[in-house]
Amino acid sequence: MSRRNRAYYLRRRPQGTTTGVDLELVEERVPDLGPGQALVRTTHLSVDPTTRVWMSDYPAYMPSAPLDAVLRGVGVGEVVESRRDDLPVGATVLGWTDWQDYCVADDSALISPFTVLPDPLPAPPGAFLGVLGHTGITGWLGVDIGRPQPGDTVVVSAAGGAVGSVGGQLAKLAGARVVGIASGPDKCRHVTTTLGFDTCVDRTAADWRDQLDAATPDGVDMDFENVGGEIMDHVLGRLRIGARVVLCGMISGYDALGSGSSAGQHEISQLIMKRATMHGFLVFDHADRFATIVDELAGHLAAGRLHADETVLDGLEKAPDALGQLFTGANLGKIVVRTRV
Amino acid sequence: MSRRNRAYYLRRRPQGTTTGVDLELVEERVPDLGPGQALVRTTHLSVDPTTRVWMSDYPAYMPSAPLDAVLRGVGVGEVVESRRDDLPVGATVLGWTDWQDYCVADDSALISPFTVLPDPLPAPPGAFLGVLGHTGITGWLGVDIGRPQPGDTVVVSAAGGAVGSVGGQLAKLAGARVVGIASGPDKCRHVTTTLGFDTCVDRTAADWRDQLDAATPDGVDMDFENVGGEIMDHVLGRLRIGARVVLCGMISGYDALGSGSSAGQHEISQLIMKRATMHGFLVFDHADRFATIVDELAGHLAAGRLHADETVLDGLEKAPDALGQLFTGANLGKIVVRTRV
Repeated sequence: MSRRNRAYYLRRRPQGTTTGVDLELVEERVPDLGPGQALVRTTHLSVDPTTRVWMSDYPAYMPSAPLDAVLRGVGVGEVVESRRDDLPVGATVLGWTDWQDYCVADDSALISPFTVLPDPLPAPPGAFLGVLGHTGITGWLGVDIGRPQPGDTVVVSAAGGAVGSVGGQLAKLAGARVVGIASGPDKCRHVTTTLGFDTCVDRTAADWRDQLDAATPDGVDMDFENVGGEIMDHVLGRLRIGARVVLCGMISGYDALGSGSSAGQHEISQLIMKRATMHGFLVFDHADRFATIVDELAGHLAAGRLHADETVLDGLEKAPDALGQLFTGANLGKIVVRTRV
Repeated sequence: MSRRNRAYYLRRRPQGTTTGVDLELVEERVPDLGPGQALVRTTHLSVDPTTRVWMSDYPAYMPSAPLDAVLRGVGVGEVVESRRDDLPVGATVLGWTDWQDYCVADDSALISPFTVLPDPLPAPPGAFLGVLGHTGITGWLGVDIGRPQPGDTVVVSAAGGAVGSVGGQLAKLAGARVVGIASGPDKCRHVTTTLGFDTCVDRTAADWRDQLDAATPDGVDMDFENVGGEIMDHVLGRLRIGARVVLCGMISGYDALGSGSSAGQHEISQLIMKRATMHGFLVFDHADRFATIVDELAGHLAAGRLHADETVLDGLEKAPDALGQLFTGANLGKIVVRTRV
């Protein structure tokens, strides 16, 4: 019996907003395994803002996703065949599944090999792509770098997203006053009511700048920045002396990467005026701390101190839509594509 | 006998490049001193990129220079009348002289009062506005913040300027490979030959980006940024992982401050990609260290390890031109207006 694989191939670099037209869903035969290989059936695929970065030819922290290859992605899956002892059949694993039903796991992964998740799973599989995975860890790291103090005012953009929601809740646990920025009144209400932020600015409102000013009357001590663009510029204009900007993502500019049409940041000089510091960081650099961080996040979850949202789309063919949702702000929390329903 | 004062009043906020048309040279009577006041005759006036910031209504680290008041400025002068013991007649002093011949010194200074310089002066008066003054200290602080290590590649923009020339030489003393960026072949030659930078990129050359790439084959560990704009963007694109950007000035954007027409920075996302840190800083925050820093700079000067350039323009009426030179890159080193020739 030969298994059939469905896989999204990247056919060209997106121009502007990605709609999936740059991807082709190909059906193909799953290859036979060679020595040192295992076959992983994807069950949950992570869709991240950085996916859009990989699709471009912008010089980023990893090589661009190659054209005419399956699009890069992280997922959770099940080992269904194996010729390696560390990935036994039946194990639930986390790793670079890419955008496809079946993935051959071997030692060629760009950053890290597949890891076997605990059995039984202490949380739903999607959590290992979210609050207990790279986005949750990213939220934790941003707060670790920005070190909010009791009484500080912290602004978190994309506050309803996978990273911002965790970062904001952890800043709140650290004693800060936390102001979210999110898309639409419903999401803003969720950010304050369920996630416990002190307030949330609706960036789709015409008066979002006034809302942000009113929400930060004494200025901003720390900016957990996930969006960039005009939102970040306005926050930069409200920094207090000695503020920290934790630069986690700039999703508002990702559609323009490589096109030369970015609107740019116009208030970087505020870093001088306010003697502020901006810290770029990447989750992958901190792999030696992942286990400790995940333990802490799991503890917060178990104690009810941390709420994790997940938006699940069913079916691999929903992956391009899922990616699009990140750019319209339609998703709540971590967005995961469940490939095996 | 009533003394006459000539003073540059700021009449309007400049639009674009400042040409002096926004300033009016007024001749007026010097006021009589009240209790606790001294009269300082300006001998040397400092002209700085930040002068242009003060002239705008951009929210900066100090209030904008008020309209219809004498333009703010730091200078060296001589006390010619006094009703305070700490500023005796005959003393050479450093402080906020503003752009005028005579200034009344009292306790109303925005940041710091006048300080009496040593007698006899250990260096020419202009040095206390340059290498042994705020620009030299700024160069020292930028290197202190960026901490270049032996073998690091450090890029210094405005390398022939008052701050960059000192910063680059100190980075070289710290063992780094230092690449300057300056305007024109003559200044570039000076930067390498006299200031001892390893190489210098001519930003007026059509191929300056290629020059910069060739000069930084392994990337950039530290950027001592004085210019901003497209030069900074190109340097950001060459950062190494973990690089430090010391954000001292962004002169390329100062003409557009408050006009909403800034070209913006388009490569800030490189701070994420390279896990880099950007540190804004201001010399005024470090007043408690000035004496120690000046001692160190004076030691380097005396030992011939540090070269200080000064461009002197004679006559208060040259001050607007002096300011303009900063924006065309015409000056070499610290630009000082000698008001008493």
